[in-house]
Amino acid sequence: MIEKSYVVGMDIGGTNTVFGIVDSRGNVLASDSIKTHSYDKIEEYVDAVCSKLTPLLDKVGGAEAIKGMGIGAPNGNYYNGTIEFAPNLPWKGVIPLASLFEEKLGIPTALTNDANAAAIGEMTYGAARGLKDFIMITLGTGVGSGIVINGQLVYGHDGFAGELGHVVVNREGRACGCGRKGCLETYCSATGVARTAREFLAARTEPSLLREIPAEEIVSKDVYDAAVQGDKLALDIFEYTGTILGQALADFIAFSSPEAIVLFGGLSKSGDYIMKPVQKAMEANVLKIYAGKTKLLLSQLKDADAAVLGASALGWEVKEG
Amino acid sequence: MIEKSYVVGMDIGGTNTVFGIVDSRGNVLASDSIKTHSYDKIEEYVDAVCSKLTPLLDKVGGAEAIKGMGIGAPNGNYYNGTIEFAPNLPWKGVIPLASLFEEKLGIPTALTNDANAAAIGEMTYGAARGLKDFIMITLGTGVGSGIVINGQLVYGHDGFAGELGHVVVNREGRACGCGRKGCLETYCSATGVARTAREFLAARTEPSLLREIPAEEIVSKDVYDAAVQGDKLALDIFEYTGTILGQALADFIAFSSPEAIVLFGGLSKSGDYIMKPVQKAMEANVLKIYAGKTKLLLSQLKDADAAVLGASALGWEVKEG
Repeated sequence: MIEKSYVVGMDIGGTNTVFGIVDSRGNVLASDSIKTHSYDKIEEYVDAVCSKLTPLLDKVGGAEAIKGMGIGAPNGNYYNGTIEFAPNLPWKGVIPLASLFEEKLGIPTALTNDANAAAIGEMTYGAARGLKDFIMITLGTGVGSGIVINGQLVYGHDGFAGELGHVVVNREGRACGCGRKGCLETYCSATGVARTAREFLAARTEPSLLREIPAEEIVSKDVYDAAVQGDKLALDIFEYTGTILGQALADFIAFSSPEAIVLFGGLSKSGDYIMKPVQKAMEANVLKIYAGKTKLLLSQLKDADAAVLGASALGWEVKEG
Repeated sequence: MIEKSYVVGMDIGGTNTVFGIVDSRGNVLASDSIKTHSYDKIEEYVDAVCSKLTPLLDKVGGAEAIKGMGIGAPNGNYYNGTIEFAPNLPWKGVIPLASLFEEKLGIPTALTNDANAAAIGEMTYGAARGLKDFIMITLGTGVGSGIVINGQLVYGHDGFAGELGHVVVNREGRACGCGRKGCLETYCSATGVARTAREFLAARTEPSLLREIPAEEIVSKDVYDAAVQGDKLALDIFEYTGTILGQALADFIAFSSPEAIVLFGGLSKSGDYIMKPVQKAMEANVLKIYAGKTKLLLSQLKDADAAVLGASALGWEVKEG
């Protein structure tokens, strides 16, 4: 019998699906990708992944050498191994993706949402190693979260716990894609930063490097580039964004009193521009009994591999069906 | 060897300390109380409890018949069995109360805050029997909470998790006893309801039964009594309070996706006056994936015994030291 020394990780994004083979130390030994939106039928999508994944598996001894496969997907339900009503994916309704891969590859497969996968990845290979209580916040196009309590990921009674990007920070605030108003992600995601830029540019008259870009084309990277140049308005955008995030984190601490909050994703790479106001607002707003206790950390998952690594970590935990 | 068929529960309030002996079905067989503030030294307080508790123990076969003792106390730390810097108790600093009782009585003792004790009580004897994921909200002089995930109470890395009464619902809102502004408890506790009454009476000119009471003397019971008479202003106070609470509950659901939220304590006894607006605002504000999933329940712990019952439930879980 071959020892099961590897796991497969797969991250399903709105644009790309990335997958790879990972060893127990968190090295991505081989990886590949396909375009998520090229496959209208889920069976064709699974076939396309498998035809690119099988050659990678052969390099390490085939499916027999794999302990499990972990999938990170939008609206992923851990309990059922399904993707449910994901607005940005081509397949509608409830998709039993974990069992489709299990049947095709003979590898036990588990599935959860991408932020939960990132949290498990951080706990297995990254900044949260050894932590039993932490909250992972993913700052990407949206804001996601994965909550770990007593060393276990919180899935909730239905598998959908941990949508902290949709906690309301301003009841009369910005319209959110979820249909409500003022969700954290309308302010603290990459798109939220771009919205703030447009708001500030319209409300103020001072000069700014950002005025050289057509307002509708501004992205969060532009704000970062301007901040690096010392642009006052860009720095104010980070201050504003970081303050809202830090205030929200102070409230999250009152829920689970985590040892650390780990920030992950695009916006967290803006370094001190975002981290300093987040840290300051978190400390200024946290309830006294928690003051100074919760560390604010940056993800330590390597950028290019992070999505695959996160999902792969779930592969170590899969129970054989 | 005598079978350990009973537990002791003790609830430490700012005014009274109540304790009793409870069987496995949740019957309080015997109980008594002392005045918390009559004892400046913690040793005298422990002696006073024990001198009244020992005769009760003798009725069921002495300390040998007791599986464990559970204590619910403000600022109680489960991990250390300590009360830490409780502003409303006579003993300052860190008080190792669990070990003081263990030494004195020879009964394994555990301690947590009163809202956590209520959650364990509800799970053991009340509305949350059989539930693995729920949130208990206690609506008393303040607002407390106990969070259960995967059948386990959430204590956090430091033992102080679950202070949902201090989640900020309005950043520019009412001053809170914790030193910050706009905490949930400044609106949705019994004292919060009385503050709302004073605000509404000052801001409006319409007649109200509440105008017959000197503003500073109004308590939440007066608002209830007026609501029962059909008083429009009193009904509006409940609508306002319930809406704020329901909005907050919708955000809490995004954290742990509980099967139920259980309301406990004075304000929850106002029945439909408070429950209807809470339910309505919760459903109107919850993220779509959670809609209609989380039940809103009233505590089923009997009023007079609830505090002792809640604390006693912890006694079943104590590990012998």
